[in-house]
Amino acid sequence: MSYKISDLVTILNCRIKGDASAGIVSGLAPFFQAQEDMLTFASEEKFLKNLNGTMAKFIIVPDVPLPENNSKVYLISNDNPRNLMPKLLAFFKRKIKPFEKIIENSAKVSSSANIAPNSYIGHDVTIGENVVIYPNVTICEGVDIGDNSIIYSNVTIREFCKIGKNCILQPGCVVGGDGFGFVKINEINTKIDQIGSVIIEDNVEIGANTTIDRGTIGNTIIKKHTKIDNLVQIAHNDIIGENCLIVSQVGISGSTEVGNNTTLAGQTGVAGHIKIGNNVIIGARGGVSGNIPDNQVLTGYPLVPVREDIKIRAALKKLPELLKSVKRLEKNIK
Amino acid sequence: MSYKISDLVTILNCRIKGDASAGIVSGLAPFFQAQEDMLTFASEEKFLKNLNGTMAKFIIVPDVPLPENNSKVYLISNDNPRNLMPKLLAFFKRKIKPFEKIIENSAKVSSSANIAPNSYIGHDVTIGENVVIYPNVTICEGVDIGDNSIIYSNVTIREFCKIGKNCILQPGCVVGGDGFGFVKINEINTKIDQIGSVIIEDNVEIGANTTIDRGTIGNTIIKKHTKIDNLVQIAHNDIIGENCLIVSQVGISGSTEVGNNTTLAGQTGVAGHIKIGNNVIIGARGGVSGNIPDNQVLTGYPLVPVREDIKIRAALKKLPELLKSVKRLEKNIK
Amino acid sequence: MSYKISDLVTILNCRIKGDASAGIVSGLAPFFQAQEDMLTFASEEKFLKNLNGTMAKFIIVPDVPLPENNSKVYLISNDNPRNLMPKLLAFFKRKIKPFEKIIENSAKVSSSANIAPNSYIGHDVTIGENVVIYPNVTICEGVDIGDNSIIYSNVTIREFCKIGKNCILQPGCVVGGDGFGFVKINEINTKIDQIGSVIIEDNVEIGANTTIDRGTIGNTIIKKHTKIDNLVQIAHNDIIGENCLIVSQVGISGSTEVGNNTTLAGQTGVAGHIKIGNNVIIGARGGVSGNIPDNQVLTGYPLVPVREDIKIRAALKKLPELLKSVKRLEKNIK
Repeated sequence: MSYKISDLVTILNCRIKGDASAGIVSGLAPFFQAQEDMLTFASEEKFLKNLNGTMAKFIIVPDVPLPENNSKVYLISNDNPRNLMPKLLAFFKRKIKPFEKIIENSAKVSSSANIAPNSYIGHDVTIGENVVIYPNVTICEGVDIGDNSIIYSNVTIREFCKIGKNCILQPGCVVGGDGFGFVKINEINTKIDQIGSVIIEDNVEIGANTTIDRGTIGNTIIKKHTKIDNLVQIAHNDIIGENCLIVSQVGISGSTEVGNNTTLAGQTGVAGHIKIGNNVIIGARGGVSGNIPDNQVLTGYPLVPVREDIKIRAALKKLPELLKSVKRLEKNIK
Repeated sequence: MSYKISDLVTILNCRIKGDASAGIVSGLAPFFQAQEDMLTFASEEKFLKNLNGTMAKFIIVPDVPLPENNSKVYLISNDNPRNLMPKLLAFFKRKIKPFEKIIENSAKVSSSANIAPNSYIGHDVTIGENVVIYPNVTICEGVDIGDNSIIYSNVTIREFCKIGKNCILQPGCVVGGDGFGFVKINEINTKIDQIGSVIIEDNVEIGANTTIDRGTIGNTIIKKHTKIDNLVQIAHNDIIGENCLIVSQVGISGSTEVGNNTTLAGQTGVAGHIKIGNNVIIGARGGVSGNIPDNQVLTGYPLVPVREDIKIRAALKKLPELLKSVKRLEKNIK
Repeated sequence: MSYKISDLVTILNCRIKGDASAGIVSGLAPFFQAQEDMLTFASEEKFLKNLNGTMAKFIIVPDVPLPENNSKVYLISNDNPRNLMPKLLAFFKRKIKPFEKIIENSAKVSSSANIAPNSYIGHDVTIGENVVIYPNVTICEGVDIGDNSIIYSNVTIREFCKIGKNCILQPGCVVGGDGFGFVKINEINTKIDQIGSVIIEDNVEIGANTTIDRGTIGNTIIKKHTKIDNLVQIAHNDIIGENCLIVSQVGISGSTEVGNNTTLAGQTGVAGHIKIGNNVIIGARGGVSGNIPDNQVLTGYPLVPVREDIKIRAALKKLPELLKSVKRLEKNIK
């Protein structure tokens, strides 16, 4: 892929600082993940103070004092770059081919795969050896499914997602739905196209009706041997480590990273933009609102060691009585 | 539509008070939403005390003393009207046409729409300009989809629901499933047909595997520019205002009203039959059990201002120790 | 079905104690549910101490001192039987026939049933009188659907599940997805095949996008007249009693038993391997972590009588202030 910087300047209505003669980028990427030939953006102070921290040559920035830097080209916006996001992502969004037939001509399906009736296999899809696709599955354009994977009925795998080998997708799960990304423009919720994808590594299982959103920019990743139960929400740009267990009805907000061998028990909620370490166990209904180091066993909300949580719950039952005791004491002391 | 009162009297085994010679109603509606030519019912004290509060000419009532009122016709039931509900709603339930072919003959599909293979388009459906329907979608009888909307795979839109323009329905979401309505008859859970519908206004997005139930009588409504994330439950007769953000795994019980520009963060639970105001923000996992005025920022369960919630959570960790301190104090004072 | 013990001995690499000349079992079952001609296993102390407690003639046991018992045949494993589970369940897993056509030849569909286009009816399926199957439904091999049931769009019913008469399955629900069962082998999450099934009795309703997992060994059961709302998780081997109401977003962990006429309100979480009695009501968001006797009305987490919960929530708001009061008291008393 290649995109002309001059087209971007027009669409985003910004001006150039630096030598834009190269004139072409291969794509859009987050600040720390961008390659040299890519475009990124720096809207927050932490990026603006560290403009050499990205490998990207082209950086969209607000109209603030900028360091002299011959290796970078700035696209200066008068607006906050966040407001440019809808236009920017619409520009980089890949065009989708129209639907033509149940198994599109460009799909490459291994002869050992068993594709049930009523399933749609999109343009440029690749389906590996011995894959089983149940009825009423939708595999959208550009998806890649590794050998020996089983895709149960009513699963949707949206455009350009990758499914590894030996994966099992239980019925009704959704891989690659749009992340929940909106900005307010003139106070109105305005969609930001979600141009990233989802990568599911080998030996992953995904439960029935679980939803795994595609990344806004960059990918949502589920690493190998991780098993996800039913009705779980994995938001855009989450990275779930290897060999984890994510139990039913857990919800993980966007851009959160979970380490390896970690278990999140049922109905746990996890905030966005945090890191949970390796070998962590969060008990059922845990509320994870900040980073968690390795090797912790925590539960509750507030999140505390299991023993503490048991004590807190026991104490809660005595709380109304405690209130009275303290009032009595206060009277007596007066 | 028109329904004979005389048929109803037979089916419901009730008797008439007033001049029923008109003899026909156009439908069934809730007490305060009914038009003059409709039937409503008054089972609770608040309605019985205010029988002129409805525009409906025909009212089902229990056998209690009734005001003289020449403009109303009462259908007097010996039983509590709640017990009549299953029969009443079955009577007004619209008949559904049998399935005949993948795109039924009476469907009106714009020539600019892109309908994928394997999707079912029901009787009397209308599909606007440039609509994209992914594979394995089911659009049931009488549904209306506005211009430029995108309906992703494995979505179900049940009978007679309306989807506005520029809407996006992520994969697997369900619009118009039956509300969870049952009464006990001889102690047995007995279904009440859900004869209302769902109205989704323009520029709404609905997340993957989210469920929006149809109204029991009257409609469930999602107003324009509102964005709903994955795995959210919106129950029968909820009304969600304009430009709201409803984050993943939120559950809203039936007949609740949410104002405009309101945000409910992830895993929040909302009780039924309450009102949440405009410009409200409820933090993640909030428990909303009563009405909320405009312009509040609340979190937790109990629901309190954010700062209070942080203090409560911090204090909870000290609660077991506090219990001991108070016991010590009580000893010392004795 | 019949399985040779000699094949098992080879696959599981164990040795025989007792007279294995019979040589054949009809299947695998849990300790207390197994019939005489079945195989079971005893890995935990409570089973090993009570080896006559199972009717099964054939028992897999670890290499521990065993009682002389002429009526039993032991398959002695050097490993913990839990480690054998993946191999054992793979051995007893039924083979699935490949997909051939939209309505497989061996399916028995009543002539009064209305099967919509785009729905798949698998091998050896039985569909009763007046059943309505909406579009894009998948009925897998060996499923049985009783008279008058309605199966809405995008429902998946996986292999060998039974649906009773007069049932309603709202769109997108999944019956018979694999239970969330894994063991760690060399520290790696390893799938245990889920060879049980799901039995849905008569007059049951299942909400949109709800998931009901099949049993690991033995069945998950939903008894008659029970109504389940949207986005509910019922895990493997749960038994839900008659005439219950399970409200939206409830999650029930595996091997739990719920009595008759019990209500679990929205977002309630229930631990695994417990028993909830008859006529119990658990308020919204209840956290059920232990057994509950009959006729209780409880709410909250910790779970307490409703009045207590209201007091605890009110007291929580005063907790930060209480902490200060106690500090003040402690100072004054010194």
